Amino acid sequence: MDSSQIKALVFDVFGTVVDWHSSVVRHGEDFGKANGITADWVAFAEGWRAKYRPFMDKVRSGELPWTELDSLHRMGLEELLDDFGITGISEEAKADLNLAWHRLDAWPDAPPGLHRLKSKFILATMSNGNIALMTDMAKYAGLPWDCILGAELAHAYKPDPKTYLTGVELLHLKPEQVMMVAAHQSDLLAAGKQGLKTAFVKRPLERGPKGKVDLTPDPSFDYVCDDFRDLATQLGV
Amino acid sequence: MDSSQIKALVFDVFGTVVDWHSSVVRHGEDFGKANGITADWVAFAEGWRAKYRPFMDKVRSGELPWTELDSLHRMGLEELLDDFGITGISEEAKADLNLAWHRLDAWPDAPPGLHRLKSKFILATMSNGNIALMTDMAKYAGLPWDCILGAELAHAYKPDPKTYLTGVELLHLKPEQVMMVAAHQSDLLAAGKQGLKTAFVKRPLERGPKGKVDLTPDPSFDYVCDDFRDLATQLGV
Repeated sequence: MDSSQIKALVFDVFGTVVDWHSSVVRHGEDFGKANGITADWVAFAEGWRAKYRPFMDKVRSGELPWTELDSLHRMGLEELLDDFGITGISEEAKADLNLAWHRLDAWPDAPPGLHRLKSKFILATMSNGNIALMTDMAKYAGLPWDCILGAELAHAYKPDPKTYLTGVELLHLKPEQVMMVAAHQSDLLAAGKQGLKTAFVKRPLERGPKGKVDLTPDPSFDYVCDDFRDLATQLGV
Repeated sequence: MDSSQIKALVFDVFGTVVDWHSSVVRHGEDFGKANGITADWVAFAEGWRAKYRPFMDKVRSGELPWTELDSLHRMGLEELLDDFGITGISEEAKADLNLAWHRLDAWPDAPPGLHRLKSKFILATMSNGNIALMTDMAKYAGLPWDCILGAELAHAYKPDPKTYLTGVELLHLKPEQVMMVAAHQSDLLAAGKQGLKTAFVKRPLERGPKGKVDLTPDPSFDYVCDDFRDLATQLGV
């Protein structure tokens, strides 16, 4: 496809740019050691991620007013600690554990691929993560964003059309000048429905070595790539 | 002063990071050549900048609803063309001239100084410029922001306290963990009043070689520096 009209690439982040699974497992293990707790930290990480959707749905449905992702992660953590029977944790330790989501490692191809892409395109986050989370993570993982867009600026969580369209509008671009890059097909389908271009990135390890990930791309996607280096090559940079 | 508690530096941009005066003069000259118009382009640039405040005041007073800076620049341009008796300009040429504010050259010390500062601090814009303007300018001038904050996120123009405090809040920081960096004393005094730290940067040429600039810093400022390299040195990076 002709990429000459594309001015900005906007990225899903959790799973697409950073490896939340192994990072949260590791932060869980560190938390366990520091607090003398034994648990299945893989199940802990996956359980935490699994709470993301139902809490977000509470905002989507209006049961909760607008609430940033850090706070939803924290509500999920409280439930999760209960689920795992972990008690007696200080407020400070819980607050620090919640910052695990600010300290996620990039997939190895992400920083070099993004640096190549940055030479030609505006690079922005289009994540459900809030600005503080995205900013801290960019410093931690070396992600060279030009700006932070996404849910907090729209007060709407993906796949709400408002999230994508607010970002497009804030950049003064038309939807077809913006390409959504994601490892999640539902995210791309929602962005594509609003007129954005779409690039699917295969992240077979997003859910860990044993996790199941759908890697058969929908035929509507404009680009399909193995990683960010491959995307840069396909986009001619 | 002890800088160890400072986590983020937030920057005024027009005049502090970029040289709006000589850049807008140059873009005016280019516009003149392209459209066969002769004018005093220094007066044109200064006249355009002078319209910034009264238009912003219309938003502050509520006479205008929230309006981003690009649109205020455009309203100012329409008046300015009238003032200069310039007529018959196409919509396309006016829209392009309005983008002069997206294409401002950095002061020579700004990119290298910011790259040094970025190794230790979160760097964000705290400008009245909107996100598209700030993002385009960062690409054009090579400014390595971690995120774009400022008026558009608060729907309030500096020196409204809301502009500064919204930025601080979006970063999940306390005012005293954030330092405002500006060449304009009124901006720093307003930020300081909200509890932010303050760094005054001397920009003697902000208003061109003949312009008058107040370089005697208020004694309340935490740092006073000659440029961004000097600021980096004073902050130990």
